[in-house]
Amino acid sequence: MKPKRFALTPGEPAGIGPDLCLLLASQAQPHPLIAITSRDLLQERAAQLGLAVSLLPVSPGHWPDVPAPANSLYVWDTPLSAPVVAGQLDKANAAFVLEILTRAGNGCLNGDFAGMITAPVHKGVINESGITFSGHTEFLADLTHTAQVVMMLATRGLRVALVTTHLPLRDIADAITPERLERVTRILHADLQDKFGIAQPRILVCGLNPHAGEGGHLGHEEIDIIEPTLERLRGEGMDLRGPLPADTLFTPKYLEHCDAVLAMYHDQGLPVLKYKGFGAAVNVTLGLPIIRTSVDHGTALDLAGSGKIDTGSLQVALETAYQMAETRL
Amino acid sequence: MKPKRFALTPGEPAGIGPDLCLLLASQAQPHPLIAITSRDLLQERAAQLGLAVSLLPVSPGHWPDVPAPANSLYVWDTPLSAPVVAGQLDKANAAFVLEILTRAGNGCLNGDFAGMITAPVHKGVINESGITFSGHTEFLADLTHTAQVVMMLATRGLRVALVTTHLPLRDIADAITPERLERVTRILHADLQDKFGIAQPRILVCGLNPHAGEGGHLGHEEIDIIEPTLERLRGEGMDLRGPLPADTLFTPKYLEHCDAVLAMYHDQGLPVLKYKGFGAAVNVTLGLPIIRTSVDHGTALDLAGSGKIDTGSLQVALETAYQMAETRL
Repeated sequence: MKPKRFALTPGEPAGIGPDLCLLLASQAQPHPLIAITSRDLLQERAAQLGLAVSLLPVSPGHWPDVPAPANSLYVWDTPLSAPVVAGQLDKANAAFVLEILTRAGNGCLNGDFAGMITAPVHKGVINESGITFSGHTEFLADLTHTAQVVMMLATRGLRVALVTTHLPLRDIADAITPERLERVTRILHADLQDKFGIAQPRILVCGLNPHAGEGGHLGHEEIDIIEPTLERLRGEGMDLRGPLPADTLFTPKYLEHCDAVLAMYHDQGLPVLKYKGFGAAVNVTLGLPIIRTSVDHGTALDLAGSGKIDTGSLQVALETAYQMAETRL
Repeated sequence: MKPKRFALTPGEPAGIGPDLCLLLASQAQPHPLIAITSRDLLQERAAQLGLAVSLLPVSPGHWPDVPAPANSLYVWDTPLSAPVVAGQLDKANAAFVLEILTRAGNGCLNGDFAGMITAPVHKGVINESGITFSGHTEFLADLTHTAQVVMMLATRGLRVALVTTHLPLRDIADAITPERLERVTRILHADLQDKFGIAQPRILVCGLNPHAGEGGHLGHEEIDIIEPTLERLRGEGMDLRGPLPADTLFTPKYLEHCDAVLAMYHDQGLPVLKYKGFGAAVNVTLGLPIIRTSVDHGTALDLAGSGKIDTGSLQVALETAYQMAETRL
């Protein structure tokens, strides 16, 4: 069996991404894990944190076949454009951040990596540098020529996928079209099968309106859009329940019998997930031809170099990527 | 000290409200609790459930001063218009349901009762009878001549109040006006002081948009409406934090230091609350001149007469009303 290698992108160099990678290295991983970033950056941050981590150089054509031992980390050295001070953003390194992602994404496409795990980037500083960038997910969708991706957050015991993601609240209702709902549901269903190994995924679908519209008294999108779309997809054999009221659906009676929840929008689905999975949630991008998981938190600039951070979310992101890769083979 | 008497309205006679009252009677309450409904109905339902509960008649001028003993229940007999079959709605009894609420509400206003606890009514059948009825809350607001009330759900360790309640999602953004937000915040703040005994309430306020608008990138209502309103009220000494992203706010770091969360809309705040407090959540109407709490579930017509129901939410509704009345005196 071919060894499964994974790419780890530390993201924004002034944030806690490098710290997370170094803290993680205290324990051996079950698979070869390759941090794609500047070796100098990691060395400086390790010194700042007082960590002794051996940085083992790797590169295309010179990949490792076994996991790195504890207290060491494989690094595919990727040069910075400017020196980094922990906590201080510098737009000079925006292209560096994207080069990391490009290397990881292309490595997944060409088979060098079985998947990629991303630490947070800072959207603002990349855009300030003059590069239009709306997020990891969109960047990887472009890189892999994928028209529609789906954001799913997961923690132990709960997965929540979103029909819409980062839209102002007043734009959400118009964005819930039969086409979009169908595309998102198909991707969720297919990826639960292919990447999570669930033969017949059971999906609970939220309504858009409170009480799922209460028979049309509190909104018509359930009747006009959601119900007919779900009914059509059920006709193909998909196990879809709903539309259900969001404040009913997120209770044990329903959740015990489902593999994923499909929420119509960000603040309908994610507060419960983050409440349940605080510090141990993972963001998974569905619909890509590659496996990509991510931590669920930001760059935490104020904590970079402090050592006062929790690797919980990164641990879950790694475990999830490993499991998805196992399932896929 | 004057004994505190409370009114319990069993609501829809064909639903589980009468069952809940009878099951509850197995244990003595700390205060005299008076069920306002038909004595015949309770007798029939008790027979159906196989429960031996003594029904003790009371009425205005003949109020009890001590709690009823276990396995007995004070009843202010209120005649049905038509016989009831458990599980079968009958619009002939719509006026009966409203008479129960009127008796309880007026009794609170005139000092007979220290508060009222409501079991669910069925809005549909009341409207079918020709009486316009949009819910307990609105009915009691009318009865007590209250212009603005606030819906708050609570469970042990978490309270969530709502700026908007039963609106279609596409109408929410326009309903978040500075005037409404200010009125609702004032009521929440005042009732946390007066009815919950919290001298300086700490309130966490959600943004309207995902990531609380992310500095205007995902919506402008935080900048245009929410922030200025909160800032003005902070100037009066209120302890208000926010607007915060809903998926950040509902985590221990924030919740540990707050007395209530103010969510902008139903499905932003209630899924977490009901996830956390499943089966033990209470609905409290703030802003009324009287104390009113309610169960957080519906009439469950299919379970009426079965005995397979949980009194958890009613227990919390009672405890909450008792505590509020203690605080108020």
